[in-house]
Amino acid sequence: MRREGVPEPVVRRLPRYFSLLDRLSEQGVVSTSSESLGQELGISAAQIRRDFSFFGEFGRRGHGYPVEELKKGIAHILGTDLRRSLILIGVGDQGQALLRHFDFEKYGFTVACAFDIDPARIGTEINGIIVYDGARLEEIVSARVPKVAALCVPPDAAQALVDRLTPLGLRCFWNFSGRPLRSDRMDVHFADVDFADSLLALRYSMEQYETDL
Amino acid sequence: MRREGVPEPVVRRLPRYFSLLDRLSEQGVVSTSSESLGQELGISAAQIRRDFSFFGEFGRRGHGYPVEELKKGIAHILGTDLRRSLILIGVGDQGQALLRHFDFEKYGFTVACAFDIDPARIGTEINGIIVYDGARLEEIVSARVPKVAALCVPPDAAQALVDRLTPLGLRCFWNFSGRPLRSDRMDVHFADVDFADSLLALRYSMEQYETDL
Repeated sequence: MRREGVPEPVVRRLPRYFSLLDRLSEQGVVSTSSESLGQELGISAAQIRRDFSFFGEFGRRGHGYPVEELKKGIAHILGTDLRRSLILIGVGDQGQALLRHFDFEKYGFTVACAFDIDPARIGTEINGIIVYDGARLEEIVSARVPKVAALCVPPDAAQALVDRLTPLGLRCFWNFSGRPLRSDRMDVHFADVDFADSLLALRYSMEQYETDL
Repeated sequence: MRREGVPEPVVRRLPRYFSLLDRLSEQGVVSTSSESLGQELGISAAQIRRDFSFFGEFGRRGHGYPVEELKKGIAHILGTDLRRSLILIGVGDQGQALLRHFDFEKYGFTVACAFDIDPARIGTEINGIIVYDGARLEEIVSARVPKVAALCVPPDAAQALVDRLTPLGLRCFWNFSGRPLRSDRMDVHFADVDFADSLLALRYSMEQYETDL
């Protein structure tokens, strides 16, 4: 399955396809249609068929898409069929929420360990994950070479961690700090989880509607 | 300031403009340029000038944009200059993370109260917010008529809450459950905070890069 030439908007829809197919699979659904997927996601059936056509043949026309096969195909495109190592930095409420409730395995990740600078948290275990002293970041990261760091630290602390982790070989940052991050390297990737963005979008829809009344 | 005829993509960029301007304002920056905003956000300066032109005149050509005025203008468009009431449902790790660390006020919200069904949490106070028994949802919501509900509950519990809260007048749902939600009403809005989406996008970039090596 090749990934070249897949337009960016298609790639951006893949996670939503994956999550929906995963849920259907859990519910025991065996096959589905572009119409039913489209309705669920608010995307046209034609768009979905076009998107899927970039990745070769999933199912036959008139017979629907086989849920499990389609899910596996998309997982392969996304790369989640390979297991990668991740570290989590900052085990405050947000970090703990992820360690306790986020299904890292489903998305092809293993949490190697966590870090914090609060002495009360260092040495504890959260959902089986050991929390190390942030001062030992270099030593432990160099030995394990994780692929991704989830940054669950306050806004002011995030950029310094990127600058510290990049020379150690970290290239991907899942950013919960609420502050945009940067790197001079072209091969460093960031994914921001910005709560404010979605709340502000909701706010806009709300005020819009009230204005129209 | 009118909102009609503002294209959807422009609206979607507003929260990011607001957050950046808010940060510049906190740093004491008085005026800024479309070039500098663009560089910070990865958007072209021309695009930013076009976006801002939808909302009338902010500043004069060659003199830069006044940060505070621009921030206030965007806040007005987004509606965050009015204070609205919000309730939060589910004070597990995620709910607690929001109550403790998210700056609701900055985005024009007051958290009225929280709800949970865990007896150990009912009656406690988190950052000054009282946690009520979920069984009292109808009684308390009817009296206060909040605008937005933040749903920090497990995936399986979220849709039932939408179905329960919509008849009480709730129209906006900030959804942390990880499950897409729906309503038959056209005036009900959802904003999903989906952690998996951003992690999967990061994953794709990462595998893409490794493949290219």
